Amino acid sequence: MAEDAEVVKNKQVLLKDYVTGFPKESDFIISTENTISLKVPETSSGVLLKNLYLSCDPYMCLLMQNPDSNSIKESLASYTPGSPITGFGVAKVVDSRNPKFKEGDLVWGPTGWEEYSLIDQLDSLFKIEHTDVPLSYYTGLLGMPGMTAYSGFYEVCNPKKGEKVFVSAAAGAVGQIVGQFAKLTGCYVVGSAGSGEKVDLLKNKFGFDDAFNYKEELDLDAALKRHFPDGIDIYFENVGGKTLDAVLLNMKRYGRIAVCGLISQYNLDKPDGVHNLSSVLFKRIRMEGFAVFDYYHLYQKFLDIVLPYIREKKITYVEDITEGLESGPAALVGLFSGRNVGKQAIEVAHE
Amino acid sequence: MAEDAEVVKNKQVLLKDYVTGFPKESDFIISTENTISLKVPETSSGVLLKNLYLSCDPYMCLLMQNPDSNSIKESLASYTPGSPITGFGVAKVVDSRNPKFKEGDLVWGPTGWEEYSLIDQLDSLFKIEHTDVPLSYYTGLLGMPGMTAYSGFYEVCNPKKGEKVFVSAAAGAVGQIVGQFAKLTGCYVVGSAGSGEKVDLLKNKFGFDDAFNYKEELDLDAALKRHFPDGIDIYFENVGGKTLDAVLLNMKRYGRIAVCGLISQYNLDKPDGVHNLSSVLFKRIRMEGFAVFDYYHLYQKFLDIVLPYIREKKITYVEDITEGLESGPAALVGLFSGRNVGKQAIEVAHE
Repeated sequence: MAEDAEVVKNKQVLLKDYVTGFPKESDFIISTENTISLKVPETSSGVLLKNLYLSCDPYMCLLMQNPDSNSIKESLASYTPGSPITGFGVAKVVDSRNPKFKEGDLVWGPTGWEEYSLIDQLDSLFKIEHTDVPLSYYTGLLGMPGMTAYSGFYEVCNPKKGEKVFVSAAAGAVGQIVGQFAKLTGCYVVGSAGSGEKVDLLKNKFGFDDAFNYKEELDLDAALKRHFPDGIDIYFENVGGKTLDAVLLNMKRYGRIAVCGLISQYNLDKPDGVHNLSSVLFKRIRMEGFAVFDYYHLYQKFLDIVLPYIREKKITYVEDITEGLESGPAALVGLFSGRNVGKQAIEVAHE
Repeated sequence: MAEDAEVVKNKQVLLKDYVTGFPKESDFIISTENTISLKVPETSSGVLLKNLYLSCDPYMCLLMQNPDSNSIKESLASYTPGSPITGFGVAKVVDSRNPKFKEGDLVWGPTGWEEYSLIDQLDSLFKIEHTDVPLSYYTGLLGMPGMTAYSGFYEVCNPKKGEKVFVSAAAGAVGQIVGQFAKLTGCYVVGSAGSGEKVDLLKNKFGFDDAFNYKEELDLDAALKRHFPDGIDIYFENVGGKTLDAVLLNMKRYGRIAVCGLISQYNLDKPDGVHNLSSVLFKRIRMEGFAVFDYYHLYQKFLDIVLPYIREKKITYVEDITEGLESGPAALVGLFSGRNVGKQAIEVAHE
């Protein structure tokens, strides 16, 4: 019976109103007015989660925009102003009316930006079976960003040993993994990032063959020609716009471009024009947009590959974790100015 | 011995100088000063061809441009000013020093814009085995454009019954075949073309489900929404620029774009910007440039499929054939203003 269920305060991060351009901290409200029962209602077959870590991801910016403002984003379900925003997180099951999960289970998947979340849609909620690695990794290396890197690099790009790989936003949640996968595959990999500190990480921590700060390059085409005198086989696209245009000029024949994100474009009313698409024709390039959800069936295979790499220290991961739900808006907003170094997440509660 | 070889006059179409933008008739010279021996020299292992039909194809425009002017086109070998231009043609072997071909054979493949050509590179010269169809078809339906339609539609786009297909330049050498393949596959197909006469052909001769004159549409996005209220699964891209931008807004999730040509861009110093590439990400689109040469190993399979279709009148083909090498420059130039109706070829000589 739900009558005797404990009811607790439930702090939340609400979206104040639809956002134009990139979000600001003032676009969010920290609300302490909500309460929640720690039992799943009888009308639900879901789970009640205590959120431990929340993930800050660039796509979330798109969900803050008015869905009527851009027909291209039609497939994305925008946030509701006045309600808590949602995203990926790591959580502990407090109560379950679903046979797949039981009290005490650790899980990762879609959840709310609040202390406790009632989750009805469990299709992409994964049980965490391996806890000898940091739990926060399930917001990054072992969660959605890791699967994004894996499916985009291996499944979309079909890399071969010796190929030349370029990764933009390379120090980010996905990019740092792509670079390490590329090295483990025997590729030559160069990354771009937006600060000297990040470039240093790429070269000295993640083992990229080379890296550059795109903010210091007046001519991206020249920068790419310097790093790839014979051209690029694989481009892992996280940013779009001018970078994509310069990359197209430097792709090799039969090159592959996995379109994972276009963060430079997310705040623009009219996206930049890309002028060098004739490269796609003349160089017989395959450019493919993908979404991680289409590859979730490979998650176990992914774990079988990546967990040993972590344990053997063949893959490393840099996180930027802030403390407390109140720090969420600043952490999320910081993504769009590149303030974070490594995977940005928020620790909401201790296990 | 070459001493007693017959030497004949060899009329040629020479490129006067590199062309900027689309070519004009005055960019060519008809030369009657050349002579040629009708025997293959002993130093060659090639064939001496009497050209019967020459093909006018949009890509030829690119070969008239100064190769230094555009690094994207690096993979294309430009024409040499003062020399005859080259292209695809149907020819009769007059003499051969190659065991694959003998005097009297009919062939199609790369040749010169002249009465007789000495061809040393025979890799992509095909022997014509079936002459119960018009010989000129080997410049179109049964030649490079036919194989382009086949490989682009079937191999790149992987069409399924019931899918919605859009073809630009749909009345052209390739487009008219793609539309008929789409119907034979059970797809719904709409084509765009540049005149009422061509739209009429698409609907009433080639069996497209619908067609429109893009020159009469002020808003291409609206035109596509009218014809594809539920979106486009497959776009066979022949034109680029604004059409591609409008199509991207109307693609369905998991859509495929085969980039076959970008004729609207070939004359531009700075190609149009394409603004809607975020569709590639959000709709998980695959956009792929291809070249027919990569699919030549499928030519026999293609013939096995298409020859019966022709004989059973399940596929038809409209050609626009002018008479005489002298008519070549006007015919070629006309491609870029859309003057031709159907596949543009030149009959140089009777068999």
